[in-house]
Amino acid sequence: MYDVEAVRADFPILSREVDGHPLVYLDTASSAQKPRAVIEAIAETYENEYANVHRGLHYLSSLATERYESTREIVARFLGAASEEEIIFTSGATDAINLVSYAWAAPRLREGDEIVLSALEHHANIVPWHFLRERQGVRLRWVDLGEGGTLDPGAVLDAIGPRTRLVAVSHMSNVLGGLVDVAAICRGAAERGVPVLVDGSQTAAHTSVDVAAIGCDFYAITGHKLYGPSGSGALYARRERMAETRPFRGGGDMIRDVTREGVVYAGLPLRFEAGTPAIVPQIGLGVALRYLTRLGMEQVAAHERGLRAHARRRLSGIEGVSVWGADDSGPILSFEIAGLDARKIAVELDRLGIATRAGSFCSRPLLRTLGVGALCRASFGLYTTQAEVELFCDAVRDLARAAVAREALPGGSV
Amino acid sequence: MYDVEAVRADFPILSREVDGHPLVYLDTASSAQKPRAVIEAIAETYENEYANVHRGLHYLSSLATERYESTREIVARFLGAASEEEIIFTSGATDAINLVSYAWAAPRLREGDEIVLSALEHHANIVPWHFLRERQGVRLRWVDLGEGGTLDPGAVLDAIGPRTRLVAVSHMSNVLGGLVDVAAICRGAAERGVPVLVDGSQTAAHTSVDVAAIGCDFYAITGHKLYGPSGSGALYARRERMAETRPFRGGGDMIRDVTREGVVYAGLPLRFEAGTPAIVPQIGLGVALRYLTRLGMEQVAAHERGLRAHARRRLSGIEGVSVWGADDSGPILSFEIAGLDARKIAVELDRLGIATRAGSFCSRPLLRTLGVGALCRASFGLYTTQAEVELFCDAVRDLARAAVAREALPGGSV
Repeated sequence: MYDVEAVRADFPILSREVDGHPLVYLDTASSAQKPRAVIEAIAETYENEYANVHRGLHYLSSLATERYESTREIVARFLGAASEEEIIFTSGATDAINLVSYAWAAPRLREGDEIVLSALEHHANIVPWHFLRERQGVRLRWVDLGEGGTLDPGAVLDAIGPRTRLVAVSHMSNVLGGLVDVAAICRGAAERGVPVLVDGSQTAAHTSVDVAAIGCDFYAITGHKLYGPSGSGALYARRERMAETRPFRGGGDMIRDVTREGVVYAGLPLRFEAGTPAIVPQIGLGVALRYLTRLGMEQVAAHERGLRAHARRRLSGIEGVSVWGADDSGPILSFEIAGLDARKIAVELDRLGIATRAGSFCSRPLLRTLGVGALCRASFGLYTTQAEVELFCDAVRDLARAAVAREALPGGSV
Repeated sequence: MYDVEAVRADFPILSREVDGHPLVYLDTASSAQKPRAVIEAIAETYENEYANVHRGLHYLSSLATERYESTREIVARFLGAASEEEIIFTSGATDAINLVSYAWAAPRLREGDEIVLSALEHHANIVPWHFLRERQGVRLRWVDLGEGGTLDPGAVLDAIGPRTRLVAVSHMSNVLGGLVDVAAICRGAAERGVPVLVDGSQTAAHTSVDVAAIGCDFYAITGHKLYGPSGSGALYARRERMAETRPFRGGGDMIRDVTREGVVYAGLPLRFEAGTPAIVPQIGLGVALRYLTRLGMEQVAAHERGLRAHARRRLSGIEGVSVWGADDSGPILSFEIAGLDARKIAVELDRLGIATRAGSFCSRPLLRTLGVGALCRASFGLYTTQAEVELFCDAVRDLARAAVAREALPGGSV
């Protein structure tokens, strides 16, 4: 039995108030709050165990190196990678995807080569590919959504042509919340000899991920959405792809030798990690992943899906409210209230201590596809309670009623 | 009067022991320890004030944005920049220099164009330029050192030719410790129309920096050497240079609009900051810089120079010990003991709780120039005491005596 109250007690920030109201934090898709274990690991490292990694012969440096490198194994296990050598530390998913764009794709793709993207993508999985279009004439092929905003793997595979060199696709939309069947996409793409990059920014926090079962070539995660520290993250890269990737950032630690004439690069994956890394954030990420593993990602997923399904049903029954996304497999719920600007909804909810987001969520092509300019989004996490969802739904109902009443007045909407 | 004992009391880790000995942390040039104010700011932010920045309309997001953006002003003031709009947040100096290499230099430099580098450089200020050599035929022109391992600004200016497009030079060697007269280099380079990038990784922690007075185009700093968190850092970029720089990483937050067809990029400096940044590390960096400012960088510098001068004099008087670098303007002291491997020295010192480094310090071209394979390095910080320096010098003396005694035995050195 999933004990959400016990989980909440692990998150110090959840006991705070906002403007006299208990904080109801429904912005986990933007960034998750951090359990005490993570915060304490950061403080404890700085207070007692901090030094630079890899290069030191002294006690603290060995200790820091051991803790830092053990996170690589934790990430590998968490993602189902065959070995920690398939894990590259990055400052987040954006950094990870840019690494693939600059260091794997840019040197390989030629003018007229194609990258297949879906209409679901976050800007982090769009702009790095637009760079290749702008700079070297690569073409972006966009896959439209099917019924109810879902992405059909068959449609992605149909978009693959003879010039397709990469499929870059999200595992879960940060606006609609549904899981994408990336395993089916990877199977089909592999048959066609095309590598697949999966943006797992949202997914890894909400369901168990197994990159071996998915069969992807690259999988990007970001620590801050995984209940881990700011500035942590990783890229899974299948060994063959990693071997094809040239160095991204240059600097210390990623070399075997440097002379005035040239560089001999270090082996995999260190070759991709230049300079002093985000040592303590990555150690904190390891602690966060252990926390998630202990809770059990299946339990977390079941809890969150229940909340999403309940919220969707309640909001769908309210006059004037439109809910986006019929699939409850990810705890992200975007909605509109007729006659009320999305930003205004978020501001009104904030007055009640309810933190949501409004806007286009770094997903403008998706919002254009949906035909909307801005949405309000509530996103749930492993600490979200049924009671919070009710409070949120009550507040939306009240806002919708007021909006409907205003619409009914002579003079119309605000 | 600089009260080093009061300063030490601000650093929790300094009261720990290693193997029964009080920790003597002489590895600050690798990474500095963190004052309690920084550690507490990190914990306090996660416990009470954390959310994603820029995109939120709710209370916590506004609070986090305000704290995060206020760090930009703190960095600008700390470096003497004209405006916070000249500050780009990066994950450290390596990331900052790579940004300049990929986003300013790579699109502008042509085959046969030249970059002037000094023999002092850290790999972080070498490998990104070797990338341009490997990938687009840019030439690296190396400037040799003068008497006593110093870099003569005139020699740098003499290396500038008609094809020189950039001078990339360290403000302080991480091996020899001396300050480089980068202002003179920038004046001469400006007369010749050549921009200058200064690697301030070491300097900013040990002396006051004024980029306006220096007259550089780019100045890179790294938070973890500035007593700030892992994963924090910044690049100062003069406005004209920033305007010439194309986006580096693509993703959220650095765009004004994204469509299937293209991208409209955000203004300066946000254009260079894609995705969720290292929010809490950067907030911690702001706290660290305020801490340094309160101590007074001139006081810190005077304290550290005194320690360096004392250590140099003591070590120079010990038979069998060679000290590198006659200039005491940076608190970094590299040395050798005849007949004793540098790594062995560091391991022996570690047994006494004294943390030093040994190796080539990510500066292999410099060590080749000096004609040595590896050195041992002690580096001091604002919390280092005279008593620690005496302990260290005593320990080196004992090691040197033992080495001399071994050399005198039939059978020779170890």
